[in-house]
Amino acid sequence: MTNTVGIVKEKDFTFGKNEDDALILDSGKRLLDVNLRYETYGTLNKSRNNAILIQHALTGSAHVAGYHSENDRKPGWWNDMVGPGKAFDTDKYFIVCSNCIGGCSGSTGPRSVNPETGKRYNLSFPVITIADMVRAQYRLMKHLNIPKWLTVAGGSMGGMLVLQWVLDYPDKIDNVIAIATSPKHSPQAIAFNWVGRESIMNDPRWDNGNYEDEFPENGLATARMLAHITYLSEKSMDIKFGRKLRKLKNYAYNFSHNFEVESYLEYQGQTFVERFDANSYLYITRAMDYFDVTADFDGDLNKAFENIKTKFLVVSFSSDWLYPPTESRKIVKALRSSNVDVTYCNIDSHYGHDAFLLEAGTLGKLITGFLDANYLT
Amino acid sequence: MTNTVGIVKEKDFTFGKNEDDALILDSGKRLLDVNLRYETYGTLNKSRNNAILIQHALTGSAHVAGYHSENDRKPGWWNDMVGPGKAFDTDKYFIVCSNCIGGCSGSTGPRSVNPETGKRYNLSFPVITIADMVRAQYRLMKHLNIPKWLTVAGGSMGGMLVLQWVLDYPDKIDNVIAIATSPKHSPQAIAFNWVGRESIMNDPRWDNGNYEDEFPENGLATARMLAHITYLSEKSMDIKFGRKLRKLKNYAYNFSHNFEVESYLEYQGQTFVERFDANSYLYITRAMDYFDVTADFDGDLNKAFENIKTKFLVVSFSSDWLYPPTESRKIVKALRSSNVDVTYCNIDSHYGHDAFLLEAGTLGKLITGFLDANYLT
Repeated sequence: MTNTVGIVKEKDFTFGKNEDDALILDSGKRLLDVNLRYETYGTLNKSRNNAILIQHALTGSAHVAGYHSENDRKPGWWNDMVGPGKAFDTDKYFIVCSNCIGGCSGSTGPRSVNPETGKRYNLSFPVITIADMVRAQYRLMKHLNIPKWLTVAGGSMGGMLVLQWVLDYPDKIDNVIAIATSPKHSPQAIAFNWVGRESIMNDPRWDNGNYEDEFPENGLATARMLAHITYLSEKSMDIKFGRKLRKLKNYAYNFSHNFEVESYLEYQGQTFVERFDANSYLYITRAMDYFDVTADFDGDLNKAFENIKTKFLVVSFSSDWLYPPTESRKIVKALRSSNVDVTYCNIDSHYGHDAFLLEAGTLGKLITGFLDANYLT
Repeated sequence: MTNTVGIVKEKDFTFGKNEDDALILDSGKRLLDVNLRYETYGTLNKSRNNAILIQHALTGSAHVAGYHSENDRKPGWWNDMVGPGKAFDTDKYFIVCSNCIGGCSGSTGPRSVNPETGKRYNLSFPVITIADMVRAQYRLMKHLNIPKWLTVAGGSMGGMLVLQWVLDYPDKIDNVIAIATSPKHSPQAIAFNWVGRESIMNDPRWDNGNYEDEFPENGLATARMLAHITYLSEKSMDIKFGRKLRKLKNYAYNFSHNFEVESYLEYQGQTFVERFDANSYLYITRAMDYFDVTADFDGDLNKAFENIKTKFLVVSFSSDWLYPPTESRKIVKALRSSNVDVTYCNIDSHYGHDAFLLEAGTLGKLITGFLDANYLT
């Protein structure tokens, strides 16, 4: 456990005990008794100006770095990037990450108990948006008594949360890092999410969201397998699998996995259902579909960023076809038209969208440089 | 019905009444009582040298052109391309198209009755390959007493059948047209097919392939929706749907279709299950996965085409990401290394893979020119 933040503890922040304190959502509905599961690493300095908020992606959690126990086999999801001497250097910065509302890793979501009925929300949980997730995080910020984030950073859906923070709380952020993301979900991305949700909702064990003893694991696994294809690139699949057969000399002439890539997908699906909830998958993908920076600005990205002063680091990956470099360039172009100080890098990588988790070397150096340049101790 | 072949009739050719006449498959198994449903348009000339075999794609049928009755609302699937004065000019050529074995549009497939048991094959139907489909077509060729095809032409899976014909019966073909296809299924394409099949096989109504009263329409619809995304391009989806809402002013904050693209996919899924069989979908996608021109040539495409003399027209579409232009270029490069006379065109189109059905104007002219240049009356 050298070079890591070591054993870390999950923390909880609950708010919305009464109507005055409720979380008001974009849909007009409101949530009471909202819990945010979060973790922190490093120490908040006396000036309280070294706090960085890290945003997780669709299936991530608050557990960015370190281990939950001595026996924990896997560290947090961005352990390569967060720790002493790493890009998000816990010797210098105070790192915060919270599980998004709608999630299933400690924060209030569709599987939580509705305080008004004493039963799980399931599909009575209100449909939430990326802005709702940010609004909840703002409450955590106040709770932690952080006057301003030094940085808000994240990739994929995490990058959407970054952009939403800039729009909604521009004076509460010094600078941001938006990685492998998009100013709005494209129809292709919406379409893939639709098929994933169909697959879950068609699983009879899903039971209109009210599953208890039997989990809709077939549907959720299929949704995950589909999504996983969009996280890789054609080239990375060629390199990793090609047409290699799995423990076979010839085709088996059947429908079980013959190819390595099929076996890999099956494994991805199976392990995913052990750690993720089907209803959360519905809610979070829907929030991503609804995400559109330009929604309140007549579809005009320039207008959306017109009054922004926040410094940006924007990073894309050459082979990412889910949120391709063209999407990042749209963000960069709009920011530059508003004279925002923006650093942009398109990292050459064949890892596809997953590169934001895998290209820790190059990405780490970029982030280190950007943070160093912007953190005045 | 001007400029069409008019009312056409489906024909059937059955073979394999006994063991000696059975269709021997790549798997080592054999099929008895094989029916091929086919259609023909135009007239075979006295020299019998104006016959063109057209190959359909994954979900196509023998019904390429014309109408089955006066009340038929939709013509055959490539009606724009086949007819009097059209690219495949029925005033000049004798056009043949047969439904592939494994299919569900008249030819023997998993839903056919096994003559040895008197019951449907369902999953006891042997897993077939593209070469098996071609082998069955060769029997039809002999039945029709056609000594040599002037041309074998097809797009997508149809293009795979074209390549297989060239490998297996090179002296039975004058020239070929391979459109929007690939010399072997990529791991990404295999992965998408895997997810589609998972979706069918997870549908409880699929019942291990033995559905009778209840059809696994949810699973099949989901598989189709997924596949349909791969037939479009990001740009065509942007142009066609963007983020437009379907009969809504604002998000509905629910999981039913909010976006136009979602409603479109739903419609595609629903109409597909009315015309296609779930088991056939399993078998044909598996045949495509197994397709690899280089399988018997140590993975070397040059070797595969080493002794080929057949003239080629190869066509790809710029925005096709299922069988991208790079795949067509591999074919062209290998053919040129064997000094094959090959015409190649990458048509600039934003329609994605579907362009082979939609770009009838440009594609038609190319084909007309290629056929004119090669047909010596």
